[in-house]
Amino acid sequence: MRALVLGDDGVTLRTDWPEPTPAPGEVLVKVLRAGICETDLQLIRGYHGFRGVLGHEFVGIALGGAFEGQRVAGEINCSCGTCETCRGGRTHHCPHRTVLGILKHDGAFAARVAVPERNLHAVPDAIDSDAAVFIEPLAAAFQIPAQLAISRDDRVIVLGDGRLGNLCAQVLSALSDHVVVIGKHRQKLDRLNALGIDTTLVDDRAAHAGADVVVDCTGSETGIPTAIELVRPRGTIVLKTTIAGTQELSLAPVVVDEITIAGSRCGPFDVAIDALANGLVEVATLISDTFDLSDGLRALERAAEPGVMKVLLDASDRCGVAQPPPQDPVGR
Amino acid sequence: MRALVLGDDGVTLRTDWPEPTPAPGEVLVKVLRAGICETDLQLIRGYHGFRGVLGHEFVGIALGGAFEGQRVAGEINCSCGTCETCRGGRTHHCPHRTVLGILKHDGAFAARVAVPERNLHAVPDAIDSDAAVFIEPLAAAFQIPAQLAISRDDRVIVLGDGRLGNLCAQVLSALSDHVVVIGKHRQKLDRLNALGIDTTLVDDRAAHAGADVVVDCTGSETGIPTAIELVRPRGTIVLKTTIAGTQELSLAPVVVDEITIAGSRCGPFDVAIDALANGLVEVATLISDTFDLSDGLRALERAAEPGVMKVLLDASDRCGVAQPPPQDPVGR
Repeated sequence: MRALVLGDDGVTLRTDWPEPTPAPGEVLVKVLRAGICETDLQLIRGYHGFRGVLGHEFVGIALGGAFEGQRVAGEINCSCGTCETCRGGRTHHCPHRTVLGILKHDGAFAARVAVPERNLHAVPDAIDSDAAVFIEPLAAAFQIPAQLAISRDDRVIVLGDGRLGNLCAQVLSALSDHVVVIGKHRQKLDRLNALGIDTTLVDDRAAHAGADVVVDCTGSETGIPTAIELVRPRGTIVLKTTIAGTQELSLAPVVVDEITIAGSRCGPFDVAIDALANGLVEVATLISDTFDLSDGLRALERAAEPGVMKVLLDASDRCGVAQPPPQDPVGR
Repeated sequence: MRALVLGDDGVTLRTDWPEPTPAPGEVLVKVLRAGICETDLQLIRGYHGFRGVLGHEFVGIALGGAFEGQRVAGEINCSCGTCETCRGGRTHHCPHRTVLGILKHDGAFAARVAVPERNLHAVPDAIDSDAAVFIEPLAAAFQIPAQLAISRDDRVIVLGDGRLGNLCAQVLSALSDHVVVIGKHRQKLDRLNALGIDTTLVDDRAAHAGADVVVDCTGSETGIPTAIELVRPRGTIVLKTTIAGTQELSLAPVVVDEITIAGSRCGPFDVAIDALANGLVEVATLISDTFDLSDGLRALERAAEPGVMKVLLDASDRCGVAQPPPQDPVGR
């Protein structure tokens, strides 16, 4: 089958990649769309040492199991379900887990992906397949209020105007009346202004110092020092950025100002699906481009370009770049 | 008066240092004893850029105000009391604050120190003056349960077997049945064993991985990476270590494992005073040495030696190094 595979020499488009063999409890999913995430670009740069088929944001058609024939999105952590961590309810953190397209498990930039059946969520008709690709990153945004109570009066800064920053800002704006997104790109900030969300260019950030909560979605080494600069004493920094390697950092201000830094990763798919189905989050305008899976290498290049938001891969083998995709065969 | 003063050329013992002039709301305190803290050693190495009289752990006799003639300990943050942060109850974090012996305010390694009257706490007779020096660092240890609920079942690691690590371990052992101190010095760990607290040498730490809470009291760059290694996913690292300058750090595991890092600094004096008065915390055996203030430079050297716990300065001008100090003139 076709697949975008990360190997020792970088990413290649393979046409001879073997179809995945579902492990016990897994079902095959025929991929319709997949989204390119900052994490994919980091993996290509060496983060995590992953080798295999990339891709962890996707929607497809289940080819077996309880959801057979339905459109599904899939949670990415494939946990053992039996260890102490899993029994304690922290299945996302199972020490034996694999992670789709990230850790020891082939991902969704391919014609087929094998996914644990218990990871699957049916995608309602109200969510088209392009939008369904956002379920995974939107769930990650909803992990913030799952970890941290946000009140209407909280002054919240989202650092980063990219894909995840935009989604986090939309989620947090529903909870606080004082959300501002600080970014580098006027055009990306304008998208947020159009949704009624305040924004500031990073050079003008000083006026917003003293925030109760700062969410780092920069995907950059500059994120955490800037967050430390902008959060108030005893405030909270939510860290979404994962970068390869180490960085130079002074943590003394974290102690002196008694700042809390909360790492935040995957979130609740059900909440994200409800929000998309009910139109509470706007994602259509975040799609910069859609490429056929055969053009996957170009798609990855495009996703890394400045100013680009979400780039989708169409794995349905039915559309070219220039044509609008036909309707999905099921589920709508 | 006599004072240990940090200047551009390091610390000098001055005999001609001017007596402090109390600012409005401040009273003069005649210093009896003061303790040398890891932060003092860091300040000497350049942390925070402080210049002036060192010293922020002390007990003395109030020379004016409501506590006149009584033994007192003093909170170190001198806040404005009127700004938004102070009015919000976070006086320790007042942006206009000075800090005794740390930030723009002369400290207690001197015959006299000026302290805001509202920072003073009477020291009950049940606490002798040597023990009273531990009120400030013990309050810092009690800040941990003030920030974070600790339950009996929580697996707690204290990293560092030094002064603060010992106090934190004693405080946390009263709350959790599973506290272990991980340190480098068998002799220091033995002190904790004698108090019924479990300990492990740092090379054998792997067996304790997966802790719910890890408290970094190492005072070293190695603390936070070791804490990240030992805390469980979704666990909490309490950061007590402040070091000068920056360090190389990988924060990706904090995101992937959704770890919370909570900076922790000064704590509740009233709780620390109660604990000392009721004998809930043992501090007498933590005193390695007492030097007369005139021998302050030797005392600072001694405090930096491996294996040394708390070094006290006697500022009462009544004892030499070789003689046991006489009883305090008041309060006991």
